[in-house]
Amino acid sequence: MLIYNVTSKVNWNVQQEWLDWMINIHVPEVIATGLFSKHQLVRLQEVDDIDGPTFAVQYYLDSKENYEQYITRFAPVLRAKAVAEWGDNVISFRTLMEVIN
Amino acid sequence: MLIYNVTSKVNWNVQQEWLDWMINIHVPEVIATGLFSKHQLVRLQEVDDIDGPTFAVQYYLDSKENYEQYITRFAPVLRAKAVAEWGDNVISFRTLMEVIN
Repeated sequence: MLIYNVTSKVNWNVQQEWLDWMINIHVPEVIATGLFSKHQLVRLQEVDDIDGPTFAVQYYLDSKENYEQYITRFAPVLRAKAVAEWGDNVISFRTLMEVIN
Repeated sequence: MLIYNVTSKVNWNVQQEWLDWMINIHVPEVIATGLFSKHQLVRLQEVDDIDGPTFAVQYYLDSKENYEQYITRFAPVLRAKAVAEWGDNVISFRTLMEVIN
């Protein structure tokens, strides 16, 4: 099993709006690709949040093929939409993890 | 629900030994505290691993009280054991995350 983890540092000014957009629009669009088996949205605690809070979404995948398909077929458009919507107010980075135990 | 995430960058020289120790000794000791509801060990993919691979264990907790108890009563000894065992061969950092959706 794989976890595609997207961490986002969000400007305080847009925090609530961004969270609503994530929960109601963006995450459902990612899930609608049918490539993920489950997901969860988390907020990091006890980190430096002077500039804004940090969130992460962990999307679970059953295979590397699903991941490759997501990255090539869907991610470019979904990322472009996010950038168009939030610009510099949200900085995201992505990690792929394999569950080994 | 909370996730206590411990990320470790492991020197290639000790990678297999460390993994065995994690799976057979350290993680079972953490779980034996009875404070965690589930856990998973993951390996980061597609990261710079010239110096060694990066792993993370995500320990799930039902409450902040369980976390506080772990940090005050158990973490100091378990961390000291890890440092005594692996020294500079393993560099770990910890994050607490709250599942919000």
